[in-house]
Amino acid sequence: MKQNRVDAVLQNLEQMGLSQMLITDPLAIFYLTGRMIQPLERFYGLYLNRRGGHKIFINLLETVPEDLGVEKVRFSDTDPVLDLVAAAVDSREPLGVDKNLPARFLLPLIERGAAGGFVNASLAIDRARAVKDEQERALMRRASQLNDMALEQLRPWITAGVSELELAERLTKLYRELGADGTSFDPLVAFGANAASGHHWPDDTRLQPGDVVLIDAGCIYKGYCSDMTRTYVYQRATDRQRQVYEVVRRANEAAEQAVRPGVPLRELDQIARDIITEAGFGPQFTHRLGHFIGLEDHEFGDVSASAADAAAPGNVFSIEPGVYLAGELGVRIEDLVLVTETGCEILNALPKELEIIG
Amino acid sequence: MKQNRVDAVLQNLEQMGLSQMLITDPLAIFYLTGRMIQPLERFYGLYLNRRGGHKIFINLLETVPEDLGVEKVRFSDTDPVLDLVAAAVDSREPLGVDKNLPARFLLPLIERGAAGGFVNASLAIDRARAVKDEQERALMRRASQLNDMALEQLRPWITAGVSELELAERLTKLYRELGADGTSFDPLVAFGANAASGHHWPDDTRLQPGDVVLIDAGCIYKGYCSDMTRTYVYQRATDRQRQVYEVVRRANEAAEQAVRPGVPLRELDQIARDIITEAGFGPQFTHRLGHFIGLEDHEFGDVSASAADAAAPGNVFSIEPGVYLAGELGVRIEDLVLVTETGCEILNALPKELEIIG
Repeated sequence: MKQNRVDAVLQNLEQMGLSQMLITDPLAIFYLTGRMIQPLERFYGLYLNRRGGHKIFINLLETVPEDLGVEKVRFSDTDPVLDLVAAAVDSREPLGVDKNLPARFLLPLIERGAAGGFVNASLAIDRARAVKDEQERALMRRASQLNDMALEQLRPWITAGVSELELAERLTKLYRELGADGTSFDPLVAFGANAASGHHWPDDTRLQPGDVVLIDAGCIYKGYCSDMTRTYVYQRATDRQRQVYEVVRRANEAAEQAVRPGVPLRELDQIARDIITEAGFGPQFTHRLGHFIGLEDHEFGDVSASAADAAAPGNVFSIEPGVYLAGELGVRIEDLVLVTETGCEILNALPKELEIIG
Repeated sequence: MKQNRVDAVLQNLEQMGLSQMLITDPLAIFYLTGRMIQPLERFYGLYLNRRGGHKIFINLLETVPEDLGVEKVRFSDTDPVLDLVAAAVDSREPLGVDKNLPARFLLPLIERGAAGGFVNASLAIDRARAVKDEQERALMRRASQLNDMALEQLRPWITAGVSELELAERLTKLYRELGADGTSFDPLVAFGANAASGHHWPDDTRLQPGDVVLIDAGCIYKGYCSDMTRTYVYQRATDRQRQVYEVVRRANEAAEQAVRPGVPLRELDQIARDIITEAGFGPQFTHRLGHFIGLEDHEFGDVSASAADAAAPGNVFSIEPGVYLAGELGVRIEDLVLVTETGCEILNALPKELEIIG
């Protein structure tokens, strides 16, 4: 168990007026134990109690290290595991549960009267995960370095006639060769007008002179995700492409420069949006400025007009303004930033001046 | 809405003593409506009631066809969608829910007293999905044909020095070229002793003369999955390899020959297991004989010693006996079979005699 992280969760539970929680999200358990198990349809849970007596429930089919630092309750496929869970829970107190705890586990616990009420307490974990500790910061830095290296090594493959799908596959391969665990999501590669669609799936479209080339991709390193977008132009750029690109770049850089502890997250969105709006492309910036990231590509926490929180040391999120002109082009520029005790670290180092490739 | 499928679910609900159900599994809704929506963290649900008044709850961000054949309730991210759901549900009657309905939706519905109790009623859908109708049978046939074709086209790539990962990537590509939607799971490719491990992940192991080559893979066609395993030997086969192969092949063929409506599924497992046990490899056949398949690679229903059901027309499942000798080799031979009104159709047509490649 990673004691500091467990303590953060317990503290959050206290603020929510809860004394106990059952955690079943495998990534949340990985966060707290450092041990990844994918239980598929089987039960897998970590029970935390502010008065101690934490327990982890693991099927006998899984191999687990001896030194997990928490009492293990093992069970087979034929054991009544929810009886074991109910026996561990304090039935007089409400129980916090994961937002995704499935009905097939939650309903039997409710029927057994396992706790004095059930509460969605995912925020206790989500808020802890939003603040990366030193170990996590190092892994996030490395994941983004690998992302930079992979995109750099992809450059020679961006040639006339290559398809979006071929570039996406090549990038996936580069991540593996560089030692990443895999991709944090399937790479998005969009040429020309395809880049104007927010969710264009790479297809057999082939690169032509004058196309923008939008690449939004990331890899996973020891569980932690990277995520970056760069937009290039192939061979020759129009004035219009240059104009849109410069607006997006200014929006990206202005927002990144404003990142520091205490700045309201909605203010970052506003800074980028103002620049794009003043240039006349406000309605074409169709999404929030960014999202938190860590063990998942999209984690709890967003950087948008409706964000209520302020940036805090240890937060890692994306800054990704974009402008999308239907039938014509799309430009997005995205870095990950880490809020530090004194300011911010931009985790991506690739240049952001407009590059004309080929 | 696909009325026959809806009727099957309503009939199952009746047998379970339920009058209403809330379905939130996107694949189950696809099964009933023919329309796929991936809501991610957003609510998406289909409410069925035996007395009529079905409703589908769809976020305004999703585009849906006009002719869905069920009343649509649209809502935005800021609307209290669970209030809308609660208003639709008959609060005096128990409500069936999906086994995976997440706590973040289930707990608020319980709090609102939306129904007179909540019951995991997934079996109502699962049992309907286990019986494929004509349209589904045609798609399952086609998915397995594409799987056959892809594995056939992979053959020239099985050459000295190729890596497991390279074959897996090539196969993935072939599926796409053949017009499949994608893979039904990441292809398993294992050479030599790697094939003895049930869950060997393709790596940089390179093919050598005398290796077995185990390939377990499938593709998706219009939503429906295929899944097949073939085991080859590269260049030269030992007597031991031939012996194990023949045992597994006999087990596979004997079980397939026994498939017909009414045969207890556990009997199929027993037929294959007896042959392997008599040959002295019983303890090395470490898993059940097969699993049901359809919109998901593994669906409700298994072919094992503990299976309680009998085969019924429309069932599609795998027959996949295997023998795994640690440090040495593994052999598995898998086809999908469709139970017909009079017997069975084997959906894979690739030969099963031992092939020495190269």
